[in-house]
Amino acid sequence: MSDAEKTRLNILTVAADEIHQHGFKATSLSVILERCAISKGALYYHFTSKLELGYAVFEEIYVPMFLETWQPALAHDDPIEGLCEFFTAMASEMNCSEVVCGCPLNNLCEEMANVDEGFRLRILAMQEKLNALIVASLARIQSQLRADIELSQVAYFIVATFHGSTTLSKSARNKELFQKVIIELCRYIRALKK
Amino acid sequence: MSDAEKTRLNILTVAADEIHQHGFKATSLSVILERCAISKGALYYHFTSKLELGYAVFEEIYVPMFLETWQPALAHDDPIEGLCEFFTAMASEMNCSEVVCGCPLNNLCEEMANVDEGFRLRILAMQEKLNALIVASLARIQSQLRADIELSQVAYFIVATFHGSTTLSKSARNKELFQKVIIELCRYIRALKK
Repeated sequence: MSDAEKTRLNILTVAADEIHQHGFKATSLSVILERCAISKGALYYHFTSKLELGYAVFEEIYVPMFLETWQPALAHDDPIEGLCEFFTAMASEMNCSEVVCGCPLNNLCEEMANVDEGFRLRILAMQEKLNALIVASLARIQSQLRADIELSQVAYFIVATFHGSTTLSKSARNKELFQKVIIELCRYIRALKK
Repeated sequence: MSDAEKTRLNILTVAADEIHQHGFKATSLSVILERCAISKGALYYHFTSKLELGYAVFEEIYVPMFLETWQPALAHDDPIEGLCEFFTAMASEMNCSEVVCGCPLNNLCEEMANVDEGFRLRILAMQEKLNALIVASLARIQSQLRADIELSQVAYFIVATFHGSTTLSKSARNKELFQKVIIELCRYIRALKK
């Protein structure tokens, strides 16, 4: 990796952390420059604007990180059990800062989808990609599933419930409500089988 | 209603609209003064700070409005059908500004729960209240419901899914994803019956 590539990756990593902590609008380029110990010129060499930096953080840091989190569950021999184990582990392992800060992607969606078309389209594309991955994974065991279910609808439902449960846990600032919803979500997912 | 009461109600109504449109932090007291055509003194006579005004909007406008929206569904002879009709009507009638702006309570939760303890506790209290209402309504027909379900868990699950579906519709800025999730939510709710 060249020095320029290392600098670029460092900027992206620091910016991802700042955006997660403070939101996109409140993120300060000066703080990023300071934390990376680089000049304004070096930053603008890689990203022509804060918005371009924000899109790159979204595409190169948040989306891969997010899809990687779902990957083991979806690659499981039995994706039904894979998803239940994934959600259950998250409910028991989630630390305080995750409860308070919420999911970086969900936060960015709440903050920016309404304000900037570039973010909105990237968020939508990511949701469609996650939906396609869940559908493909359930389709592998379609013969074991009930005949009356529509896979894409089920996949959006699972993701919506999961997002909604993080909102509940944010306002409760403890995991109790999150865990209740996750237990019910697992019951729902297991009932997809014949 | 006295003149002072009318002024107070007018301030609350205008502030509720401003907060819904712009969020709490970005809401400007000057704009509220201008829209209400009142002096700063008149505003401070009723509310000693912007935060106090925000709490009053939450408690006196958003919460009653929100609970009133759920009321007919929960008072229905068959709350299962009541809830399904409520969600289905919302999915078909929701207008563009609602798709874009999202639910005022959900927005305020995303913006303020993490930042201000007063908002967080009010949001939590409201969620618990809604939960209790849904539980009471399902308990009326408990004999028709499956024996293995836990009503409070089911109620939080329904609310979490509903909130999550509004997040999806916000990023898609159209109703298609929202409607998919709602159809699946109704399928889930109907399957609570024996």
